[in-house]
Amino acid sequence: MSDFTKIDSYLEQNLDHSLDELSRLVAQPSISAQNVGLKECAQLVAGMLEARGFKCQIMDTEGAPVVFGERKGRSDKTLLFYNHYDVQPPEPLELWDTPPFEPSRRDGKMYGRGISDDKGHIVSRLHAIDAILATEGELPCNIKFVIEGEEETSSVHLHDFIKQNIPLLKADACIWEFGGVDHREVPMQYLGLRGICYVELSAETAAIDVHSGTGGSIFPNAAWRLVWALNSLKGPDERIRLPGFYDDVVQPSARDRELMDKLPDVAQVYKDMYGVKEFIKGLKGGTDLKMEEVFTPTCTICGLTSGYQGPGSKTVQPARASAKVDFRLVPDQKPETVLRQLRAHLDAEGFADVQIKFLGGEPAARTDPDDPFVKVVVDTAEEVFETPMELVPMVGGSGPNHPFVHDLGLPVATAGLGYPDTRAHAPNENIRIDLYLKHARHMARVIEEFAK
Amino acid sequence: MSDFTKIDSYLEQNLDHSLDELSRLVAQPSISAQNVGLKECAQLVAGMLEARGFKCQIMDTEGAPVVFGERKGRSDKTLLFYNHYDVQPPEPLELWDTPPFEPSRRDGKMYGRGISDDKGHIVSRLHAIDAILATEGELPCNIKFVIEGEEETSSVHLHDFIKQNIPLLKADACIWEFGGVDHREVPMQYLGLRGICYVELSAETAAIDVHSGTGGSIFPNAAWRLVWALNSLKGPDERIRLPGFYDDVVQPSARDRELMDKLPDVAQVYKDMYGVKEFIKGLKGGTDLKMEEVFTPTCTICGLTSGYQGPGSKTVQPARASAKVDFRLVPDQKPETVLRQLRAHLDAEGFADVQIKFLGGEPAARTDPDDPFVKVVVDTAEEVFETPMELVPMVGGSGPNHPFVHDLGLPVATAGLGYPDTRAHAPNENIRIDLYLKHARHMARVIEEFAK
Repeated sequence: MSDFTKIDSYLEQNLDHSLDELSRLVAQPSISAQNVGLKECAQLVAGMLEARGFKCQIMDTEGAPVVFGERKGRSDKTLLFYNHYDVQPPEPLELWDTPPFEPSRRDGKMYGRGISDDKGHIVSRLHAIDAILATEGELPCNIKFVIEGEEETSSVHLHDFIKQNIPLLKADACIWEFGGVDHREVPMQYLGLRGICYVELSAETAAIDVHSGTGGSIFPNAAWRLVWALNSLKGPDERIRLPGFYDDVVQPSARDRELMDKLPDVAQVYKDMYGVKEFIKGLKGGTDLKMEEVFTPTCTICGLTSGYQGPGSKTVQPARASAKVDFRLVPDQKPETVLRQLRAHLDAEGFADVQIKFLGGEPAARTDPDDPFVKVVVDTAEEVFETPMELVPMVGGSGPNHPFVHDLGLPVATAGLGYPDTRAHAPNENIRIDLYLKHARHMARVIEEFAK
Repeated sequence: MSDFTKIDSYLEQNLDHSLDELSRLVAQPSISAQNVGLKECAQLVAGMLEARGFKCQIMDTEGAPVVFGERKGRSDKTLLFYNHYDVQPPEPLELWDTPPFEPSRRDGKMYGRGISDDKGHIVSRLHAIDAILATEGELPCNIKFVIEGEEETSSVHLHDFIKQNIPLLKADACIWEFGGVDHREVPMQYLGLRGICYVELSAETAAIDVHSGTGGSIFPNAAWRLVWALNSLKGPDERIRLPGFYDDVVQPSARDRELMDKLPDVAQVYKDMYGVKEFIKGLKGGTDLKMEEVFTPTCTICGLTSGYQGPGSKTVQPARASAKVDFRLVPDQKPETVLRQLRAHLDAEGFADVQIKFLGGEPAARTDPDDPFVKVVVDTAEEVFETPMELVPMVGGSGPNHPFVHDLGLPVATAGLGYPDTRAHAPNENIRIDLYLKHARHMARVIEEFAK
């Protein structure tokens, strides 16, 4: 391992400066689901890369632009960083202790929408690059950044973007947008992501809402149509009823179970963190719970809306109803197949009137735990975190790793500043400043060791 | 029939003055579901009665106050008017052409929340009383008004109020808060109202919303719990599944069917008015549709809310979900029985975790079509509307007629200014000014003929 004294010293001395830069980035809303502030944020990010001597392009897609940056280094090896500048919607606003787009620092943490997912990762990586440039005057290898603006809406256009730019994005390995420590402060190496198929289901039964005294007995009710259609997708047994849905599922291997077995039990942690009293399917904890969490495809209702939702009662029969639904997919399920199965199922069950709007999707993908690049990331982590990184063969969340793994042919490793109470996608999203610094130290080491 | 030349002349000459008074009443929001403006509106209404020499009391209940007014007349017979000063919530606001609480007049109509249901009825009845007092100097019989403020939230406290004030409310007959003409301009006599049991069902599965990538496979989902619980209440066959729910239903009689048979077909009218393409249960129209509309109890979802409801996608597993549900009841069903059956059913179906909040209810009640008071109202209507009033044994909506019929022992007849496009409970609620005047003329005649 090289001597990182100078680099670590730079990172500590310039920490506040880097956090100020992070504050500016978080203060720029960039909500992909609501098409708010995306171009402005892309320009801000490109400016940050250019300030480090990166050659930058803001590249149009059919959705939000992608920021691409590249700077040459000593060796001819190329490390690609994948990040995203978009964030989740901040609602419900009333549950934030401080406004989501006015980053604030207290008790060793910084708060703001997107500060963990994913803006903190971007700026701490730039901080690591600053430290290398300040101490060595050049990069030890080529570095490329691809920073998209639609990760929180299922990266709808990234797959096409990558397929159309394979020479530009050519690299030898990829560091993923997120990573972090678990509840024991152990850094985790996440080697696979589930896929997703996100849809909005909607029913419309009349032109206008009707007094429920008139319509209730004889008119179709949009809310009932939606409830029955949803119920046809999954019952309390949790089995997803689309015919053929489980056909493409690759069952986890003995090696997967062995890796999961080494990981700590999460049952009590989840119960304490989320206020959940019990798990579904009779799960109690242990390896079974951990396996179920990531190797099982899901059908989750993310939102429901119809009719009167205010206080008290209103006797009205709704003309419209809709639900947001996400299916989490495992290898080798494909979102386009699920979408086809969903339409066929609804038609067959008598819900041809229920409309499906596809809001994004991507298949699952995994990296081999024994890839040499994974070893570089794991070994360097141990020095920074002072405890061995643990290997997680698959996680429950989704991301567009499929084109990186299967179109660019890269090993993808995760590293980051996340921790269990980081509240990504929820009110009071935050980062721990100690982990922000550790991530920068880790990234500096990965760049140096990878370049060799 | 008496000579109503002077009275009719007064009503026409003072119409604008009366509509100005109505404007002031509509401009005062009085939304019982949201507890907005109720006391202010009660005071306004009491002031209007006192201006006509009524002795008034604003009487407290556990909810909104009841306005009671009484003025003696020549005969010792007493006519009781039942009205309400509360209105439905105005949402969705964006669908109103003019603001709901800024009444506006155009094309022979007046618009505003509550202008038809029920403020227009109150003020046109006062207009009739003004005409009698102006021409005769006194009332021909005793008149009492009971004007409540919780009709739109199922008159939660009116039943108790009536039971506690039976001597005060003693009368010989009652004119109901609404009535009107159908799509052929024929005045209708509505002789029964369904009951109602209005509840909010809610599920809570965690303390906070969870990233759907984490929670989807292993945590209970509040939206799914709610969907499954709702589905257990009624399926696409429209049969309500609460055990015992239909036990107390009194089937309609041959006389009921005979009366319904005489009424015009409503199928095409409803399709045109509400943009409904087809009816449920394979109903096409005719007497079967009319019977089903009013003699069948219902279970209607009035609203659904859970999780993310904004544009685009948000991958979140909701911690909370709720639905507004109304059951319309027929004789002899009782809301308290339905509430008990609902709790037992949810428990038995595995939904003990789904909470029930009772938001109001009342049983159904009917008046005998052959009561002499009904004949007075029907005969006087024919003179004003120049076509015979038609008898409707039962309507689909609900109201607190049960205590008037069963505790006060009164025949209850309907009369009013409603018409099919009046949009009660919906955006752009309105009255036709010609019908406003006709209702005042009708009421003046009812008072005079009843007093004899």
